[in-house]
Amino acid sequence: MKNPTAAMLVIGDEILSGRTRDANMHYLAGRLTRHGIDLQEVRIVADCHDDIIAAVNELRARNDHLFTCGGIGPTHDDITADAVAAAFGVSIDIREDALQLIAERCQEYGQELNDDRRRMARIPDDAELILNPVSSAPGFSIGNIHVMAGVPKIFSSMLDGLLTRIPGGVPLASATIEIAAPEGEIAAKLGELARRLPDLQVGSYPFRKHKRYGVNVVLRGYDVREVKRAENHLRQVFATKLASDGQG
Amino acid sequence: MKNPTAAMLVIGDEILSGRTRDANMHYLAGRLTRHGIDLQEVRIVADCHDDIIAAVNELRARNDHLFTCGGIGPTHDDITADAVAAAFGVSIDIREDALQLIAERCQEYGQELNDDRRRMARIPDDAELILNPVSSAPGFSIGNIHVMAGVPKIFSSMLDGLLTRIPGGVPLASATIEIAAPEGEIAAKLGELARRLPDLQVGSYPFRKHKRYGVNVVLRGYDVREVKRAENHLRQVFATKLASDGQG
Repeated sequence: MKNPTAAMLVIGDEILSGRTRDANMHYLAGRLTRHGIDLQEVRIVADCHDDIIAAVNELRARNDHLFTCGGIGPTHDDITADAVAAAFGVSIDIREDALQLIAERCQEYGQELNDDRRRMARIPDDAELILNPVSSAPGFSIGNIHVMAGVPKIFSSMLDGLLTRIPGGVPLASATIEIAAPEGEIAAKLGELARRLPDLQVGSYPFRKHKRYGVNVVLRGYDVREVKRAENHLRQVFATKLASDGQG
Repeated sequence: MKNPTAAMLVIGDEILSGRTRDANMHYLAGRLTRHGIDLQEVRIVADCHDDIIAAVNELRARNDHLFTCGGIGPTHDDITADAVAAAFGVSIDIREDALQLIAERCQEYGQELNDDRRRMARIPDDAELILNPVSSAPGFSIGNIHVMAGVPKIFSSMLDGLLTRIPGGVPLASATIEIAAPEGEIAAKLGELARRLPDLQVGSYPFRKHKRYGVNVVLRGYDVREVKRAENHLRQVFATKLASDGQG
């Protein structure tokens, strides 16, 4: 049985201009790996209706899930919900249960339930709400798309709730072996090992620390025992070049 | 005259698995904005030959430039140069001037010029080298694609050199106004202002700080004076809600 696949779509001019450093991708990637969903691709596009629709339709067609973040707030530049509705060819309007969540929050905080806050209750037809324990305005799932907020604290809380209702697969197990040698010196041996371990991914990630070059070799696979066996083997093969334990 | 456009392609399983948090995208985005090149889209794909070719061909067709990072080292999982050559339908082989750079470095550091290090001198036909002051193994430009390393220190040093030979446009000017109110309270006024400033992008980025909600309103445009005028106007409109100066 293969794990479900996923793509992510980040919507936001502020990431593309370099103003904001995205944090949600890294969070999603780690959570999906632990949940047994394979993240295949990430795209970042601007706050542009047509670009969002094109990316949504392409990515949802070739993955089991598509997770989006950004563009579902109350302001003029929040256009994700409308774009997703258009991508599915469904209507979008204020929905009672979403509005109720927002109204309760306004009452609690003594805020006015104005038109812009109502706008955050616009949900495409047939979508399922994704609850937002942080600020109440919900995201939604429609088909295989899960639409969430861009603020990292809200994104992560939405995702944590959402994943309880998405069946996962086998979490990818991994082991890291830090080698105190430049990549160019271990490449041949490593390539040979990789060919002999066709069920594992063998990644080679060079780094520089205290003016010395080293490599983190990362073994990844769905069978924990196989990963462990391969790790032990690599530690023998590179015994003379092992760094002190730790992730570097 | 419009600014040149660009896309970025990040190649790396380690980003998609959540093992590594990408740093190059944020660096590139900021550098391009200051250089007057508009970053339109970013994609992250796995170390997969066909996926790299498909992304390269799609992104280079619709942008003036495509910047890639990752996958040009000496190990078995470094497949970017071959994929880019295949995308262009050109041959790839070890090139003398690239090999010379690597050989000099090996001599300087007392390292062996083995087959794997030679492999880093594989450059597609008709490409131009991108120098690498950090570890010597070069990247390359071919057509409108610029292929660089994934290690952040190497990526940034390659990019800084490369941008001296790529003509830029008008740097996007921006101003940030921090407003001490929830987004839902200023959305209407902000939307109205945005409609009256069609030549500016008006972005609204909510945040939470010390348990209070606030918004960074960011004005962006190519005319510095216009951005400044709009900033002054916004500071008047939201005078009672301005946070103390600073970027929040």
